[in-house]
Amino acid sequence: MRTGQTPLFIPGPTNVPDVVRQAMNVAQQDMRAPDFGDLTKPIFDDLRTVLRTETATIMLFPGSGTGAWEAAITNVLNPGDKVLMARHGQFSGLWVEMAQRLGLEVEVVDVPWGTPCPAKEFARRLGADRHGDIKAVFVTHNETATGVTSDVAAVRRALDECFHDALLFVDGVSSIASIDFRMDDWGVDLAVTGSQKGLMCPAGLGILAVSARAMEMSETSSMRRAYFEFKDMVATNATGHFPFTPPTALFHGLRVALDRLLRQEGLDAALARHQRLSEGVRRAVAAWGLDTVAEHPSFASNTVTAIRVPADVDAREVIRIAYEDFGASFGSGLGQLAGKVFRIGHLGDLNEGMCLTGIAIAEMAMQRAGVPVPMGAGVAAAQRYYTLGDGAFEQTGLHLAAE
Amino acid sequence: MRTGQTPLFIPGPTNVPDVVRQAMNVAQQDMRAPDFGDLTKPIFDDLRTVLRTETATIMLFPGSGTGAWEAAITNVLNPGDKVLMARHGQFSGLWVEMAQRLGLEVEVVDVPWGTPCPAKEFARRLGADRHGDIKAVFVTHNETATGVTSDVAAVRRALDECFHDALLFVDGVSSIASIDFRMDDWGVDLAVTGSQKGLMCPAGLGILAVSARAMEMSETSSMRRAYFEFKDMVATNATGHFPFTPPTALFHGLRVALDRLLRQEGLDAALARHQRLSEGVRRAVAAWGLDTVAEHPSFASNTVTAIRVPADVDAREVIRIAYEDFGASFGSGLGQLAGKVFRIGHLGDLNEGMCLTGIAIAEMAMQRAGVPVPMGAGVAAAQRYYTLGDGAFEQTGLHLAAE
Amino acid sequence: MRTGQTPLFIPGPTNVPDVVRQAMNVAQQDMRAPDFGDLTKPIFDDLRTVLRTETATIMLFPGSGTGAWEAAITNVLNPGDKVLMARHGQFSGLWVEMAQRLGLEVEVVDVPWGTPCPAKEFARRLGADRHGDIKAVFVTHNETATGVTSDVAAVRRALDECFHDALLFVDGVSSIASIDFRMDDWGVDLAVTGSQKGLMCPAGLGILAVSARAMEMSETSSMRRAYFEFKDMVATNATGHFPFTPPTALFHGLRVALDRLLRQEGLDAALARHQRLSEGVRRAVAAWGLDTVAEHPSFASNTVTAIRVPADVDAREVIRIAYEDFGASFGSGLGQLAGKVFRIGHLGDLNEGMCLTGIAIAEMAMQRAGVPVPMGAGVAAAQRYYTLGDGAFEQTGLHLAAE
Amino acid sequence: MRTGQTPLFIPGPTNVPDVVRQAMNVAQQDMRAPDFGDLTKPIFDDLRTVLRTETATIMLFPGSGTGAWEAAITNVLNPGDKVLMARHGQFSGLWVEMAQRLGLEVEVVDVPWGTPCPAKEFARRLGADRHGDIKAVFVTHNETATGVTSDVAAVRRALDECFHDALLFVDGVSSIASIDFRMDDWGVDLAVTGSQKGLMCPAGLGILAVSARAMEMSETSSMRRAYFEFKDMVATNATGHFPFTPPTALFHGLRVALDRLLRQEGLDAALARHQRLSEGVRRAVAAWGLDTVAEHPSFASNTVTAIRVPADVDAREVIRIAYEDFGASFGSGLGQLAGKVFRIGHLGDLNEGMCLTGIAIAEMAMQRAGVPVPMGAGVAAAQRYYTLGDGAFEQTGLHLAAE
Repeated sequence: MRTGQTPLFIPGPTNVPDVVRQAMNVAQQDMRAPDFGDLTKPIFDDLRTVLRTETATIMLFPGSGTGAWEAAITNVLNPGDKVLMARHGQFSGLWVEMAQRLGLEVEVVDVPWGTPCPAKEFARRLGADRHGDIKAVFVTHNETATGVTSDVAAVRRALDECFHDALLFVDGVSSIASIDFRMDDWGVDLAVTGSQKGLMCPAGLGILAVSARAMEMSETSSMRRAYFEFKDMVATNATGHFPFTPPTALFHGLRVALDRLLRQEGLDAALARHQRLSEGVRRAVAAWGLDTVAEHPSFASNTVTAIRVPADVDAREVIRIAYEDFGASFGSGLGQLAGKVFRIGHLGDLNEGMCLTGIAIAEMAMQRAGVPVPMGAGVAAAQRYYTLGDGAFEQTGLHLAAE
Repeated sequence: MRTGQTPLFIPGPTNVPDVVRQAMNVAQQDMRAPDFGDLTKPIFDDLRTVLRTETATIMLFPGSGTGAWEAAITNVLNPGDKVLMARHGQFSGLWVEMAQRLGLEVEVVDVPWGTPCPAKEFARRLGADRHGDIKAVFVTHNETATGVTSDVAAVRRALDECFHDALLFVDGVSSIASIDFRMDDWGVDLAVTGSQKGLMCPAGLGILAVSARAMEMSETSSMRRAYFEFKDMVATNATGHFPFTPPTALFHGLRVALDRLLRQEGLDAALARHQRLSEGVRRAVAAWGLDTVAEHPSFASNTVTAIRVPADVDAREVIRIAYEDFGASFGSGLGQLAGKVFRIGHLGDLNEGMCLTGIAIAEMAMQRAGVPVPMGAGVAAAQRYYTLGDGAFEQTGLHLAAE
Repeated sequence: MRTGQTPLFIPGPTNVPDVVRQAMNVAQQDMRAPDFGDLTKPIFDDLRTVLRTETATIMLFPGSGTGAWEAAITNVLNPGDKVLMARHGQFSGLWVEMAQRLGLEVEVVDVPWGTPCPAKEFARRLGADRHGDIKAVFVTHNETATGVTSDVAAVRRALDECFHDALLFVDGVSSIASIDFRMDDWGVDLAVTGSQKGLMCPAGLGILAVSARAMEMSETSSMRRAYFEFKDMVATNATGHFPFTPPTALFHGLRVALDRLLRQEGLDAALARHQRLSEGVRRAVAAWGLDTVAEHPSFASNTVTAIRVPADVDAREVIRIAYEDFGASFGSGLGQLAGKVFRIGHLGDLNEGMCLTGIAIAEMAMQRAGVPVPMGAGVAAAQRYYTLGDGAFEQTGLHLAAE
Repeated sequence: MRTGQTPLFIPGPTNVPDVVRQAMNVAQQDMRAPDFGDLTKPIFDDLRTVLRTETATIMLFPGSGTGAWEAAITNVLNPGDKVLMARHGQFSGLWVEMAQRLGLEVEVVDVPWGTPCPAKEFARRLGADRHGDIKAVFVTHNETATGVTSDVAAVRRALDECFHDALLFVDGVSSIASIDFRMDDWGVDLAVTGSQKGLMCPAGLGILAVSARAMEMSETSSMRRAYFEFKDMVATNATGHFPFTPPTALFHGLRVALDRLLRQEGLDAALARHQRLSEGVRRAVAAWGLDTVAEHPSFASNTVTAIRVPADVDAREVIRIAYEDFGASFGSGLGQLAGKVFRIGHLGDLNEGMCLTGIAIAEMAMQRAGVPVPMGAGVAAAQRYYTLGDGAFEQTGLHLAAE
């Protein structure tokens, strides 16, 4: 039996604040009541603020972020449409696979896992696409499998510079609310996230923000769809209602989580906190003498760090020991990184103590798994950063979010 | 401000038992942990028991019952397949619409709202389908909009008698766990329900049970799908995991709800309770001198009663007053019944006192809305039935469930 | 196994609103933290508002109302002090017994159960007390065992008219926040209540309000005490702290309950609601042809109604059946009323539907226990009052609270 | 605004396990229901198991441990009785003061704070008490203010060796369920604890275990008491009921906490865990080069460690910084230790990660307060112990509990 409580160190679902858990412990309610929109409509507004958009249409699909991906594709594109995507980690790879399954022609750019979306190569291909065959460009803002953040603004610049009018789809599942995301500034047409990451709620809602242009295109899209149909959602959302029974408790959770994010901590402060807390984790990794999967600090993610263990150790052992001996969950290496890395999620409702807990447990688990890291070394590096700030050491990265 | 608490009288979501709410108030957990299946796999088993099937594959899709409908169609059928469906209420009508949207050729049998699925007409059409063009027959077991329960076994007999091998799809959203449902006995191939009705949990999971034959057909189905792909679900479910982040708190809720249903109350006792409690509601309606939408007591639903108000009264007024003045939610008339009926849901975690509360509030709301029902008359009729049983009055119906 | 949920119909603990339950589901916290007073001090202020006092000192003793009674006596009086008390029900009787145990000389005035505190007889005795031997007069504002509300203002007038300076102690456990209570206007010196009645929280706090004069007298009181020592409480309360570990979750509950009472519903509206809801219950009793223990409607309580069953029926049977068959808890007859009455509590977070539920269940239980009440008769009488108001019938009482 | 969650590091109230919090989120219930004893009586039994007694009477007083102290004294002793007590910390001092307030003649043995109850001096005084004037000996099993555990068995031997029949009172508030306590073996007559320490529940119950001899003496004790009267409690407890409204939610919490302690973890395992986790904390303190208040490791407490900071630093600064900057609560120095020590509570529902979190935060707070401890040093020492066990370093203490 496990005693005590241990925060989650996976990159989602994240630790739900107590006030959010309290708020979700509600009786079921009539989702067709006339005043139901008093609950839901301000949530749409607040999500626009989180995504820094004034005009996008927000939709909440009962389901997961994966469902929201499907909604984005099937409502806006057409069978056989060509789309440009990079594959540089497990989740960008799964997105490619979904696009293919749903009947798109995917032009895949494979780059090494550990690097970001190749904006320059995208620029080259968009420039070469004289006939505008590419209907959409997909960017994984934060590749959760590798801990790499991509430069969405650079992709927007690439589109603009060659006057390409492809839609810009962004997977912001593990970035939005934790890493700076600017839907309007970056001209994002479809942004996808979920309730269970930076928004600090349980899983259960796939969240979609759709630009006016994409909404317009959805009217003529000929892909088959039913559950994820925008029209039904938009029509019922007009009064704050839904086309089918939504998970109302989650709305109460979102209500409190958004108040916390936007009105108590403040979005900018939350982004800065993610930068600061994650920097402590990176300093710990440096102190361990281990490498991150992210090949350069400039694109190391503020929400998840993927850590390579020495070649003679199976990272799954580290994860198993952390879970069995210390009740802590770390993320595992996915796909080609299986057994080679473990990942520390550091997003959502987090503070210094929680990060240090994760680092300390990682050290003990590595010790038992045979990774020769000195006990307390990573903790001390993070503590120094948390108490002394930048002066403590050289900073490990310069972040997009901080620019 | 409303004081006090009032049960829900809509036909779903239903009132969640306190122990289920307690169980769902959990911290987020690692859905990829090795022991995660200890939580989920027994839920699959228990759901099989609830659906009275030994062999069906159970799948839980984060989403709603509507999503489960889509999963059923897109995984098993093929574009252009012909299906036989009846339209006799709002929900059977929506199902027809979804089938059409997803590219099926729907042979629709329209029958009056208030009557069940026309098993004889189905038999006739199946008999006439010499070339086996009909690939599937869809039955809405309980039409939530009209309060009518259909005889699924009769449709199975119709199929068997003409040796037709169409698949049998059943919408059991508002019947399963509350009205007798026998997947194996009735040879159901795809049964759909949700977490928020008879299963006494919040909304958030579309539940699907798939026969071995339908599973086999899903391997060659050529409909496009991604989120609802059976293969991904089945592959990850093998170890109790999921292809994307599931709403784990709901699993904890289901765990307790299923224990309650199967091990504390007992499924048969729960079905009998629904029969008994709903009979009280029907006697109240009879005492009011009002008609149910269900045209004959033999197919009146044990989970919802749709009540016609006099022609000079707008049923929406009854509903509005009940909500505003007494904090009670009744179901509204949908589609062609809008303004003509209000519905009392009587399913899930319910008892005599709760039914009487709903009846008493309905009487007060009708009084204020101008429906001339004598105060207390319905309450008294239900009370007599609840205390004296059948002897109190003539029974209003003979139920399928009780056969 | 019981299904569904049934409100409590005992006169405390009362039904806790969902928002209060949510608020109490908190992690433990440091009760010595510097900002702990931010939680507790506004609660003291709000309780003063509830008791309509500007100057009284509020104290919250972890324990029960009984503990607060002891605190009141041992801090302010001296061994052997003479006090004047009426005995007209179980709780006033227990208070007499406590006073005697703690070493006071109690001048007891026994009056019939079902009548209020005899203000005129008190006036006579106070007038006859030429040497001021009576140090305190104790009044049970609402005798929970009989459903009788006493006129505290009349006792104050009795004291004033004979210029007697005895302290005025009031047991407001089942009245405060539900029946008009005016500490300053009535010159109450010590008022006692608990968290679990009109304040809509769980049991766990004995609440005491102490006038400036009583606080002064506590400085020289020579009764032995330790746990209930005012000095320790007042000294630590100055910064919002406590002399021992308090039940912090209850403070969070009180916070929300007080906001609800004072800022959402409003105290006057809450008192009026208790008057209105209880009147419905009394009309039901009248429709049953049964008597209340309260001998005259002018002092029938707005928080609890004690109902006499016919002599040939054991009221305990009614209570047993209601509990076993219908999951409802009514209050039992206490002391000399055992077996003769059952009590319906109607205080705290309550609405029309809940009262009707209780009345309907009482009818079914009485039916089964052999009390010949017509089914639905009480429900109908209450429904008429709740929808039509005073015009429906003659009102059953004129209440102190409404004066 | 504070983000994230941080365990409590005060020595009570302790961190309540999630399952206990879940269990307490219940509706109010009828505490006079016939089946109420089904909830409460097994709790009495389990508490006997926790206290390792077969015959003691268990009583649960709504209130705090302080209240239980008062109940112990006022029910069993008589005014003017002489009792023998040691004063070696804030809490033993408060107990002396209470005994004096309640009218006992206290023979106080003052010994340095940081030493345990002086069993030899007690033996000397008991031996000298030829006339048996000493009616009771009071031992503070674990002095929460100093982090010192006393040897109750040695005091029992002292009593036995001089054939003295004084009663043995033990304050086990911060030891019971966490440090080995053997009521029957040690011949303890009155043991006192609370719900909010090793029992992992919120505050709200003072818990008392009373030997048969003490129960007998309570029948003739002449101290005044009412709320804390054993007779009322015992009489109503016979059927599992209470003389006044108890905090029923806490009983549900205790139910789950006791199951966890006795049936899931096991009492011996829980004691061993406290020994192991606290040893990690002591090794951290040693690595910091700081002293504990406990003057010798052989009586260092397994539930709380009081740490002396250098003379030029105010320990209150460490505590303030930990709270304000890192959201962590440590215990402060009390009485003569104010400003000189901070305390880390390590009892209840705790694990390695939580201890390391506390140590890491203490290091950061000390750093900012000017205590020159090397970052990560304490963490590393504890990590080594938690992963490598005794071999890592010399053990800092040999514990009574482990003997």
